Amino acid sequence: MVHIEDISTPARVAEPEEGIGRDELSLATRNHGLPLEGLRYDVTPPGMHYVLTHYDIPYVAEDAAWELTIGGHVDRPLRLGMDELRSYPPVTTRVTIECAGNGRALLSPRPVSQPWLVEAVGTADWTGVPLRTLLAEAGVRDGAVDAVFTGADHGVERGVEQDYQRALPLEAALGDDPEVLVAYAMNGAPLPPQHGRPLRLVVPGWYGMAHVKWLRDITVADQPFTGFQQTVSYRIRQEPDEQGAPVTRIAPRALMVPPGFPDFMSRSRVVRPGEVKLEGRAWSGRAPVTAVEVSTDDGRTWDAADLEGPDRHRWAWRRWHFDWTATPGQHVLCARATDAEGGTQPLDQPWNRAGFANNLVQRVPVFCPQSP
Amino acid sequence: MVHIEDISTPARVAEPEEGIGRDELSLATRNHGLPLEGLRYDVTPPGMHYVLTHYDIPYVAEDAAWELTIGGHVDRPLRLGMDELRSYPPVTTRVTIECAGNGRALLSPRPVSQPWLVEAVGTADWTGVPLRTLLAEAGVRDGAVDAVFTGADHGVERGVEQDYQRALPLEAALGDDPEVLVAYAMNGAPLPPQHGRPLRLVVPGWYGMAHVKWLRDITVADQPFTGFQQTVSYRIRQEPDEQGAPVTRIAPRALMVPPGFPDFMSRSRVVRPGEVKLEGRAWSGRAPVTAVEVSTDDGRTWDAADLEGPDRHRWAWRRWHFDWTATPGQHVLCARATDAEGGTQPLDQPWNRAGFANNLVQRVPVFCPQSP
Repeated sequence: MVHIEDISTPARVAEPEEGIGRDELSLATRNHGLPLEGLRYDVTPPGMHYVLTHYDIPYVAEDAAWELTIGGHVDRPLRLGMDELRSYPPVTTRVTIECAGNGRALLSPRPVSQPWLVEAVGTADWTGVPLRTLLAEAGVRDGAVDAVFTGADHGVERGVEQDYQRALPLEAALGDDPEVLVAYAMNGAPLPPQHGRPLRLVVPGWYGMAHVKWLRDITVADQPFTGFQQTVSYRIRQEPDEQGAPVTRIAPRALMVPPGFPDFMSRSRVVRPGEVKLEGRAWSGRAPVTAVEVSTDDGRTWDAADLEGPDRHRWAWRRWHFDWTATPGQHVLCARATDAEGGTQPLDQPWNRAGFANNLVQRVPVFCPQSP
Repeated sequence: MVHIEDISTPARVAEPEEGIGRDELSLATRNHGLPLEGLRYDVTPPGMHYVLTHYDIPYVAEDAAWELTIGGHVDRPLRLGMDELRSYPPVTTRVTIECAGNGRALLSPRPVSQPWLVEAVGTADWTGVPLRTLLAEAGVRDGAVDAVFTGADHGVERGVEQDYQRALPLEAALGDDPEVLVAYAMNGAPLPPQHGRPLRLVVPGWYGMAHVKWLRDITVADQPFTGFQQTVSYRIRQEPDEQGAPVTRIAPRALMVPPGFPDFMSRSRVVRPGEVKLEGRAWSGRAPVTAVEVSTDDGRTWDAADLEGPDRHRWAWRRWHFDWTATPGQHVLCARATDAEGGTQPLDQPWNRAGFANNLVQRVPVFCPQSP
């Protein structure tokens, strides 16, 4: 007889030379990143925004039948349909969301999970109702500490069967900067199924795991939430048995549109000799980005890039650009962001057992042939 | 000094125990398949349809500036803007497109390229102008044999720098069943960038490589086209030096929505004991699907599934369903399609060096625990 432990094994780290396995590939073929040329768009076109789903994308035949319940440590439990949610004054916020596991597959040794390189990011205009409006209506009681969000996605993880659940400290849930949204629209259209149709949480500045999709319940709790995705997963640990720090806000990062054109298989880049306009985006969920620097010699020397803005979209990435003169040979281009808290991307990997929050500087090898 | 050969290596087949490499992963993180639960939709929601791009997705700042040229062996070369193309009576066709490389990563040994498992498929309503209308207007001269389509996507492949180019035999290009479309809309909206914005070819029944995206030129040729994607790639070969048969129409295939719910990492499925409704889709680009069979014992015995339709969408997949009673234990579920030409999916892998047209029967391992 097979047991759940046979199909749901403990977390592990790959052997030094171990290639990507079938399990990691199964995740990589269904989830997807932003093709980096998509960094050219202020708002990521539908279908190019990164997607990670832990389990299956729930099938929702009728948005009209969806209900959000709000209960727990509140005075007036609520049950809200989609029409009711849409009757509140809508708020739209442009938000860059990055997966907490972005950069995981570049770590050495590699934590075995969704094998992102650097592309698990995207920016959208999200429209919905401020969470604090709904919580005010429900009347949060004294003594509440967490708001727990439950999605309709269901699965097993490390032997634990679960609906996807995450909590926010009540202070963050009630905050107005950032203001958390219960969102029903993405870029002006109903949410696509893979982005949480019909309803999801959007928590500006936080890694993706906080933005609970297919949101069906909010429970206010007077005890800290200890569910799987809060205390077992999404923790920064060096050793398997330590409690670890929680994964929360997005560390600063800059990414570059790889210049020139690619080789199909190696994905190496080819540029012509001469002037090359480098560009990309930079973001941080901790504090506004204050500087982007570019290196064209694999991180030995750095020059300031032109950072556009700031504009009114505090929670979205900012565009940067840099003029480079390519000379024949091989080059490694890098960009790194610094935010107003002084956080700068590292040149050495910030390794942890589950591969979270790896904002190691991106390296873009470029080959410049002799002029023809 | 580095040379183009150093970044663009020959095609190869993986060693027997070789894991997925960084190059394959780089493709897998940017391209993506249909999450198989998406087989529930008649028309694949935007962003869930499979995407494969050989090079970068071209950035098109203004659709209005796009031009399609039609020339070569014609009487009246044409230059058409988007408004002109949209002024023709629009035709909408529902088409299932599958990548020619679908199933590649299941082959043993594994051809090294985009490592699809089974999910590189999707169905959309494509709207555009029939190609035969445009070719009639240009006036194809006697002696023409091929229509060559050039996209704006540019890169290197096995040492050959190229714009993506594919040809269709003139007979197929002028055909009315299927009718090839020069398409500017997908599911009623302008093409998303990754699906060819603003213009692409749609060739119902053919594998994805024929549906040239970012279409900018059609050249009618009086000699067979011998470009890279026609004579080097997209060939069925057992040995590297043989000419090989061209990849053309889609082989019959059925896929199942994996029942129950998944384990996050292993992607194994868990179902409760009792009645389970199995469902999926089946298609063939060669002839209409005439039967789908299901096996719940890893292909030892087969039973007929209920195949819905046919409806008016000849070039789209058909839904099928099958009632199964799950009993505690481990099961391997399979489905296979047969088309009107008598083609049935194989139980043994149809191996070839580049991993094309692998319609090996899908295997869905399912774990059914004892009732609680």
